[in-house]
Amino acid sequence: MATISLMTDFGIKDGNVGVMKGVIWKIAPGVQISDLSHMVGPHNIREAALILFRSTPYFAPGAVHVVVVDPGVGTARRPMAAKIGNQYFVGPDNGIITLWLERAEQLGEEIIFIHLTKSQYWLAEISYVFHGRDIFSPVAAHLVSGVPLHELGQPFNDPIRIALPRPTATARGWLGEVIHIDHFGNLATSIRAEQLASHFDQKEKFMVRVGGKKIPGLVNTFGERPVGELVALVGSTGNLVISVVNGSAASLLGSRVGDKVELDWE
Amino acid sequence: MATISLMTDFGIKDGNVGVMKGVIWKIAPGVQISDLSHMVGPHNIREAALILFRSTPYFAPGAVHVVVVDPGVGTARRPMAAKIGNQYFVGPDNGIITLWLERAEQLGEEIIFIHLTKSQYWLAEISYVFHGRDIFSPVAAHLVSGVPLHELGQPFNDPIRIALPRPTATARGWLGEVIHIDHFGNLATSIRAEQLASHFDQKEKFMVRVGGKKIPGLVNTFGERPVGELVALVGSTGNLVISVVNGSAASLLGSRVGDKVELDWE
Amino acid sequence: MATISLMTDFGIKDGNVGVMKGVIWKIAPGVQISDLSHMVGPHNIREAALILFRSTPYFAPGAVHVVVVDPGVGTARRPMAAKIGNQYFVGPDNGIITLWLERAEQLGEEIIFIHLTKSQYWLAEISYVFHGRDIFSPVAAHLVSGVPLHELGQPFNDPIRIALPRPTATARGWLGEVIHIDHFGNLATSIRAEQLASHFDQKEKFMVRVGGKKIPGLVNTFGERPVGELVALVGSTGNLVISVVNGSAASLLGSRVGDKVELDWE
Repeated sequence: MATISLMTDFGIKDGNVGVMKGVIWKIAPGVQISDLSHMVGPHNIREAALILFRSTPYFAPGAVHVVVVDPGVGTARRPMAAKIGNQYFVGPDNGIITLWLERAEQLGEEIIFIHLTKSQYWLAEISYVFHGRDIFSPVAAHLVSGVPLHELGQPFNDPIRIALPRPTATARGWLGEVIHIDHFGNLATSIRAEQLASHFDQKEKFMVRVGGKKIPGLVNTFGERPVGELVALVGSTGNLVISVVNGSAASLLGSRVGDKVELDWE
Repeated sequence: MATISLMTDFGIKDGNVGVMKGVIWKIAPGVQISDLSHMVGPHNIREAALILFRSTPYFAPGAVHVVVVDPGVGTARRPMAAKIGNQYFVGPDNGIITLWLERAEQLGEEIIFIHLTKSQYWLAEISYVFHGRDIFSPVAAHLVSGVPLHELGQPFNDPIRIALPRPTATARGWLGEVIHIDHFGNLATSIRAEQLASHFDQKEKFMVRVGGKKIPGLVNTFGERPVGELVALVGSTGNLVISVVNGSAASLLGSRVGDKVELDWE
Repeated sequence: MATISLMTDFGIKDGNVGVMKGVIWKIAPGVQISDLSHMVGPHNIREAALILFRSTPYFAPGAVHVVVVDPGVGTARRPMAAKIGNQYFVGPDNGIITLWLERAEQLGEEIIFIHLTKSQYWLAEISYVFHGRDIFSPVAAHLVSGVPLHELGQPFNDPIRIALPRPTATARGWLGEVIHIDHFGNLATSIRAEQLASHFDQKEKFMVRVGGKKIPGLVNTFGERPVGELVALVGSTGNLVISVVNGSAASLLGSRVGDKVELDWE
C-alpha cells in the first residue's frame, strides 16, 4: 500500500492530528503516515505550498499528500483530490498545489482534479470546522485502499493558484526575497540554482546582499567557513540559502520572510 | 491488528515517547501508533480527559489508548487497563477516563476495569518514575497482540473519577466556562450543542458574553464573518466555541481556562 | 522487519523529517519508524549521545538508529553505519555513539564500523547539506531490508569519541554535574546509581547539594514528598535526578547544563 503524508497548521497539542490518523487507520489499517509538518503558520497557504513542493519528489509513486491549511473551511471553497504526476493531493482547493502543479505542467506529467462530492467516502457526520478529520482523512484512506480517483467526485480544470514570489533578473544577477526561515534560522530565498547555473564555474565572483551585509562567493557547505560567519550556498532543494555557520542567520540579520536578497556576479 | 494511541505530558524533546514505541514494537511488531498529544500540560489530568473524550469516537474497535499523565507515578495509585465500549484504555487510575466512562454508561456499553498486577506482562525491570515505558507500553502491546484483558490483573469497580466543569442553566440560557484553548487560540467552552438544540432554529437570537464582550448570534463556520471578528459557533466535537476569524480569541480577550462564558437566548 | 528510530536537531516545522520517512518507505515500505527526538539542541552532539544511550536498551534486536546531528555535513567527516551489540547506528562519525559504544565494549558485545562509500545505496543525487535525506535514510532503509552491513562500505576501527562529563569521587561521595534538563525541568546529573549502590541501605544519610540548596535523603519517587519540595532520586535510566514534586527544579534553582552537583553520605 502507498504511504500518506499529513501537513496542517493544527499544532501538536490538541489531539487533532492523532484523530485524523485514527480515522485513516479505521479505513486503511496499516498504511504508513508521515507527518510533514503540523507547525505551518496559521492559515499560511504559501508556506504549506513551499514545503509540499520540496517534499513530493522524495515519496514513492502513489503517495497521497493530505494538506489541511484551510481558512475557508465550511464555506464554498471546493474540497478536492488531485493526481499530479504519479502522486496524489487531498485537501481544500486554495492554491497549496501551485508550485507542484507548475512543475508537473513543465514536465508534461498527468494532472487530474476532482471536486470531492461523493459523501459515501466521507465520515457519516460532517462538522463545519474540521474537514481534515471528516472529509480529507477518509478520502485519503480510500484512495490508498484502491478507490479510483474519478470515483470520488466530479472533474474540474480550474484549480486555484496563488501568486508566489519570483526573483527578477537584474543587469548583473537576480533580485529575490526570503521565502522561508527554517528551524536553524537559515534563510531560503526565491532565487533558484538553475538561475545561477551558467555562472557556477566562477562562484567566487558572486556577491550576495541581504540585511545590509555583503556575502562574497558561494560555498558548497557550512564547514568551509569559520563558525559564526555568514555564508551563501545552494540549499538541499535548489534555492539560494543564507546561513550562519553553526548559528542563525535570521537572528544575526533580524530577517523576516519577504526581505529582499540580491545576488550579483561581478 | 488494532491501533494504539499515545497521550502524555512528556513533551517531545527527551526521547521518552520514542522509547515507548521501541518497547511496543518489540512486543507487537507492526502495530500502528497514533500520537494524540505529548504536550498535555504537566500533570494536567483534566486536559488529557478532554482530549481523550473527543478522540475515542474516531478510532476503530479494539484501539488501545495509552494515557500517561501521572503525577502519582510510583505511589499507591493503581495502574490499570479498561475496556470502555469497544476500545481499551491503559494508564494510571487517576480519572482520565471520566468523560469517556460517563458517555459509555449513558449508552449502556460494556465497561471492565482491571488493576494491573501480572508483572509477566511488564518489562523485567520496573523503574519508580517511568511506568509509561515499563508497565503501560508493554501492557498495551500485549493487549493488541491478543492477550485477554482479564489476564492482565484483578477486576475492580471503583475507578477514580474527577470533577469536570458543567454549565448551569440560567433563566434564559446557560452559564459555562472556558475548558480548553487550542493552538489557534479558539476557546472551547463547557456548554454543549445538545443544550442549545431546542433553540437552534433561532440562532440569530443567541447572545454570548465572554471577557467583557458580547457576540450576537451563532455562525456555522469562520468564513461567514469578516477576518478579525469575534464569532461563536459549535465546534467539531459539539462544544460551544469562541473564535476570532483567522485570528486568536485567546489573545484578543486575554482568556484563560476557567473564564466564565454566558449564553442567552433573548 | 526491524524498526528504525530517527533523532535529529531539525525541529518539526520545515518538513525535513517527513521527507526522510518518504525516502525510507520508498525503499522499505511498511517499516515502523520511531521519532526519538527532533528537538535536540542545534548541533548538540552530547545531548544526542545521552538520548541515544538511554534509548537503545528498549529496542528490539536489529533496530536501526539514524541520528543526524551533523554540523560537519558536506565536509570530510565520515558518513558511517555501525553494528553495536545487536542493533545498528547510521549517521555521521562525530561521537554520538560514544556512550553506547563504551557500554558495548564493557559487555564484550559485537562492534563493527563501516565507512559509507557505496553510493548505490544512496539517493541518486546527493546535496551538500542534507545527508540525512540523501545518504543516511536510504542506507537505514537498505539495512532493515536485508542488505548486509559490510556491503555498505569499508570497515574502520577508529570512530570519533567525545568527552562526556564523569563524576569524580570525593572524600565522602561524588562531585558531578547537570547533564540534561528535561521537559518537566528535572535535572539529570552525571552521578550514576551504580556509584551509590554500596550506600543504598542508608539513603536517609545522603545529602545532595545543588544551586545553593541542600536536599537530605533520596526518595524513590515524587509522591513521597509534598508538592513543591525539592527531591533527589534515581531516575528511570539510572542517573541521580533532582526534581521538584509536581514542579520544575530548573526553574526553582535557575539551573543550567554543566552546573555542579555534589552528593555526600554523612
